[in-house]
Amino acid sequence: MRQLKIIVQYDGTDFSGWLIQKKGTTIQGLLEHAVLTFTGKFSRVTGASRTDAGVHALEQVASFRTLSSLDDHTIVRALNANLPLDIRVLHAEEVSDDFHPRYSPNNKTYSYMITTQGPYSLFLRKYSWTVPYTLNISAMKHAAEYLLGKQDYTSFRAAGCSSKNQIREITELDITSSGFVDFIGFRFNSPIIKINIRANAFLRHMVRNIVGTLVETGGGKKSPEFMKELIELKDRRMAGQTAPACGLFLEKIEYIK
Amino acid sequence: MRQLKIIVQYDGTDFSGWLIQKKGTTIQGLLEHAVLTFTGKFSRVTGASRTDAGVHALEQVASFRTLSSLDDHTIVRALNANLPLDIRVLHAEEVSDDFHPRYSPNNKTYSYMITTQGPYSLFLRKYSWTVPYTLNISAMKHAAEYLLGKQDYTSFRAAGCSSKNQIREITELDITSSGFVDFIGFRFNSPIIKINIRANAFLRHMVRNIVGTLVETGGGKKSPEFMKELIELKDRRMAGQTAPACGLFLEKIEYIK
Repeated sequence: MRQLKIIVQYDGTDFSGWLIQKKGTTIQGLLEHAVLTFTGKFSRVTGASRTDAGVHALEQVASFRTLSSLDDHTIVRALNANLPLDIRVLHAEEVSDDFHPRYSPNNKTYSYMITTQGPYSLFLRKYSWTVPYTLNISAMKHAAEYLLGKQDYTSFRAAGCSSKNQIREITELDITSSGFVDFIGFRFNSPIIKINIRANAFLRHMVRNIVGTLVETGGGKKSPEFMKELIELKDRRMAGQTAPACGLFLEKIEYIK
Repeated sequence: MRQLKIIVQYDGTDFSGWLIQKKGTTIQGLLEHAVLTFTGKFSRVTGASRTDAGVHALEQVASFRTLSSLDDHTIVRALNANLPLDIRVLHAEEVSDDFHPRYSPNNKTYSYMITTQGPYSLFLRKYSWTVPYTLNISAMKHAAEYLLGKQDYTSFRAAGCSSKNQIREITELDITSSGFVDFIGFRFNSPIIKINIRANAFLRHMVRNIVGTLVETGGGKKSPEFMKELIELKDRRMAGQTAPACGLFLEKIEYIK
């Protein structure tokens, strides 16, 4: 029995998220079905991040155990042959038995896209949160400074989050903005804001709750200094709304050797 | 009774094209339904271009007649309130009764996107044709030169095309390429080719048949000089395959005053 690590990309629009549920089509469920189809045996597929329904991934990491001795390239092809086109396995490789996608130390980077109103938002709708007012970027950047470092992020955890320890370390939180969006070969005159956030781990809904609070700051509902206060309050009810799933991309996962 | 001209954007992925059919959901059908819902009266919505199933539009032009005296902005909002999110009316204005979206003299610009294999094609799949080999851009540009001007384009018309006159004037045919694709906030390392084509009118499937032939030239199956020969042959069977609809965008329509 060997363990294979795979890198998976998906457009989350039409799926019920990563984790297998009683109802709905999930990325994990479809991957387990693809493994079963080509190996003939069920194998649990474990993911690094349990992305919510509608969240996209450029490079999710997952693993499964198998007796199959097929080479890595053939495994990629066999999995893709049994997956919908909105999920693609980009890479497969054998890893040591002690590797765990979720528990092996890693840094995860998420990106969140926000478009403010522009004439061409239709093609951006599934991949960004359209906020119908102008955002003050410098206020958002100021607020973001308080989010860096090793802190208790209780204020940004989802109601149903089961994690016993709320301390996480955010090592990067960049906010960049542009007056236009490049969409494949077209340039649309819609202002866009990209929030890049990197941490050693995240609480449930943590990125989306941080983005929701940053948008309230950018919209003038909260002062940048409120972010500092909010962290100290350790109270989810004081943070902003949970930003919609469609704007969120799991961008990359870097394992610490 | 006044005539309104509207500019409509749509993601064609999930629709059966512009023209009302016995089966399938069409852009024209949905627009007529939206007009009926907000005015209470049926009105024919006539489009400038009868885009095929799966073809996208950044700025399709259409018109309809109505007794409604609502202002332009309210008409845009009323139509959008009754349309799926993948179709948006961007603009409405009153035009003179003799305006016809299709027959009033105009120049149409279409763009066609081709991606050649790269690591991130999943998010580009609905908006480009993924050709699984490298294309010789300079051969394609050379072939494209023969397509400019006022000529008989019989070799590029669809089998079912009912047009009696096959002479059209292509005034622009630009091929640009890049080693990467910008998709909203991400840069993917997939090579992309954009073909821009502008003419006074097009035969059915003309853009897609031209693109299919250019791809055969880029792939080395045909010489650039064959394009000249092909135009003279006036024989559809000698041209390349019809390129897939998903790569095609109706970009803009300019009316000649």
